[in-house]
Parts: sequence; C-alpha cells; structure tokens
Amino acid sequence: MIRLYDFWESGNAYKVRLLLSQLGIPFERVNIDILKGETRTERFLQKNPNHRVPLVEWPDGRILTESNAILFFFAQGTDYLSEDPWQRAQTLQWMFFEQYSHEPYIAVVRFWTFSGQLESNKQFLAEKMDRGHDALRVMETHLENNDFFVGNCYSITDIALYAYTHVAGEGGFDLGDYAAINRWLDRVRNQPGHRTITDDVGVVVDW
Amino acid sequence: MIRLYDFWESGNAYKVRLLLSQLGIPFERVNIDILKGETRTERFLQKNPNHRVPLVEWPDGRILTESNAILFFFAQGTDYLSEDPWQRAQTLQWMFFEQYSHEPYIAVVRFWTFSGQLESNKQFLAEKMDRGHDALRVMETHLENNDFFVGNCYSITDIALYAYTHVAGEGGFDLGDYAAINRWLDRVRNQPGHRTITDDVGVVVDW
Repeated sequence: MIRLYDFWESGNAYKVRLLLSQLGIPFERVNIDILKGETRTERFLQKNPNHRVPLVEWPDGRILTESNAILFFFAQGTDYLSEDPWQRAQTLQWMFFEQYSHEPYIAVVRFWTFSGQLESNKQFLAEKMDRGHDALRVMETHLENNDFFVGNCYSITDIALYAYTHVAGEGGFDLGDYAAINRWLDRVRNQPGHRTITDDVGVVVDW
Repeated sequence: MIRLYDFWESGNAYKVRLLLSQLGIPFERVNIDILKGETRTERFLQKNPNHRVPLVEWPDGRILTESNAILFFFAQGTDYLSEDPWQRAQTLQWMFFEQYSHEPYIAVVRFWTFSGQLESNKQFLAEKMDRGHDALRVMETHLENNDFFVGNCYSITDIALYAYTHVAGEGGFDLGDYAAINRWLDRVRNQPGHRTITDDVGVVVDW
C-alpha cells in the first residue's frame, strides 16, 4: 500500500487525502508534526531533503513530493485530469498560481494563527493579507464566468485551490465579499466522495 | 504567430524564450517593463489579472501564464518532456520546488539587486540567502548522482531550474561550493540550440 506522510492541519496534505479518497485508492497515513520539527529530522530528510510534507512513498521505495505534482500523478488517466494538452496546461497554470500567488499568503497566515506565530509576524501581516486578497480576486474574476477552474468540470485544479481557500477564514480572511468563490466552494463540497480536511481517511500508522 | 509578453531580465520569461528557440517555434516578443509598472496597467491586467509575465498569447486570443505551465504546454509531444507518467510527475515535482522553494529566494534577491531595492529590503536579506542556499543544496544533492533532473536527459525540468540558478551570482549567491551544480550548468549550456538570457531571440514588436 502507498503511504502518505501527512500533517493533519496541512491543506497541501489534504489535497492528496481528498483525491486519493475520491479515486478510491487505499493508503496509509503517517502524521509528521511540523510544529515539533519532525520534517527536519535526519530520518525524514532522508526521504525529502526539502523537508516538507506531503510526501508519498511506494512499497518499492519510490518517493514523490510537492502536493500538486502528486495530484497530477494520480489524476493521469482519470476524470480528474483532462487528456487535452491545452486543458492540462490550464490546470498547471492554476496550480502554479496556487503555489506562488495564493498559498504563501493565505496558507501562511493560517499557519501562523494555529501555530501561535501571529504575534511574532505581525509586521508582515498587512502585506500577507493584501496579497491573499489579490489571489482571491483573481479567483473570483474567473469564477464569475466559470463553474470550475478548467474545462467546466471538477478536476484536480479545483482540489488544489479548494484546500486553502475553504479554510482562509481560519487565518482571518473574510470570504463574505466573494460570492462566486462561495458558490464554487459549495460545488466542490457537493462532489461525489468529498471528504473534509478533518475527516478520518486512510489507515493511520506509525513509522 | 504566438506572442510572448516578456521582460528582458526575467528568468521566468527566459525559460520560455529558451524552449521556444530550442523547439524552433517562431514567436513575437513584447517587452513589458516591470520596473515601470507595466504589468499593473489596465491594458495588461485585461490579459493577466495576476499581473505577471511571462504570458503567451495566440492569434485566436487564447492566453497562457505561469512559466512552468507554458514550458509543459509546448514540451508535450517533444523530446523535452517524457510521456512516462512517473517521469512527468517528477518533472512537476521539481518545477513546483523551483517556484516555491527556489525562485522566491534566488530570483527575488537578484531582482532587488538590479532594481535598486536591496537596501530597502536588507532586513530580509539574510533569510532569503539562507533559504536560497537550502534550495541549492537540495539541487546539489540530486545532481551528485544524476546528470539531469529527470530521466537522465535534458528536459524542461532543467530549463526551469537553470533559468535562475545560472544567474544566482547576480544576487550575490556564491556557487563556488556547488561542484555538481556547476557541472550541470555546463551540460545545459552545451545542449543543441542553447540561447543565453541576453540572446536576441524572437521578433521584437511593440503592442
């Protein structure tokens, strides 16, 4: 069975949990506690020198990191990723947008909040919030004319963007003004096999 | 003919110039001067609400943004991107690494340097340099045992990582201690059809 090195609160890890659940792929989960520095141990660095979760490990020892690359890998050949070269490029465009222009603001402020680091980072907060809202506005503009991000159907693009958008409020981002985003969040939640970020999926194991 | 909205100094834009040149795809180039705020004009925001170059526009009006998504699009079906699902996932793993763990440090310090913003950002410099060297160490570790990043041959993965690594010194990153990276930089430079970041490629046009 494949094994997901996970962190319960991580939206990036949740992306993988959600897709694997929707695809019906069984997996083991290991909780790596970032707050205790467990991605920086020698043991973990042997698996990912870039000290991050999520990480997927196969029984034969192969390892894949980077949440959106993991999504792409498992979605190939399924309904969650188009075979069309142009739609694939659009999926990647939005996934790179998510990692460069969305996650470093929206996910990071949420992380500071639940890890108790908001006070020590307060001088950076205003800029983080501004840029997070920039990303939300880009999404809102797109969703005003589209039900989903690519090809008018649910795909890994939506999973990648849903993961941190739906919990943006936990970092203080008010989504009240983003009507199109809120309608899209509901559409994602209503997909067959949807699981929430706190749902107990996979088989939890120690390592 | 396709049109690349470019910024001469941008490594992200250079990735696209380099691949299009190696593929022999003709293209127009428009210089968008980031330093003069030209990505923030209404006219440009109509094309990319996320106010960034590079951007590729087709004669029929289609637009694609995000450098690594553009690389992936043009490389599909060519020798610059494997058809193998596992190798494709590894390509994406490294391209997301580049955008999340490499570019925000190595490219940003270089940008501060040539745009005259180093002094005003000096309180952030030490952390940017540390994280940039973290990324370089991850690359060095991989390249100690591999000639290229994926599948033992030159691909868009190498183009994505070459773009800002080979000019890291312009931001003050000393590459002297990275022997494997230096050997890889030479291998990339020796690929057929290689063009430098300052080479005059494409057809420069106004817009």
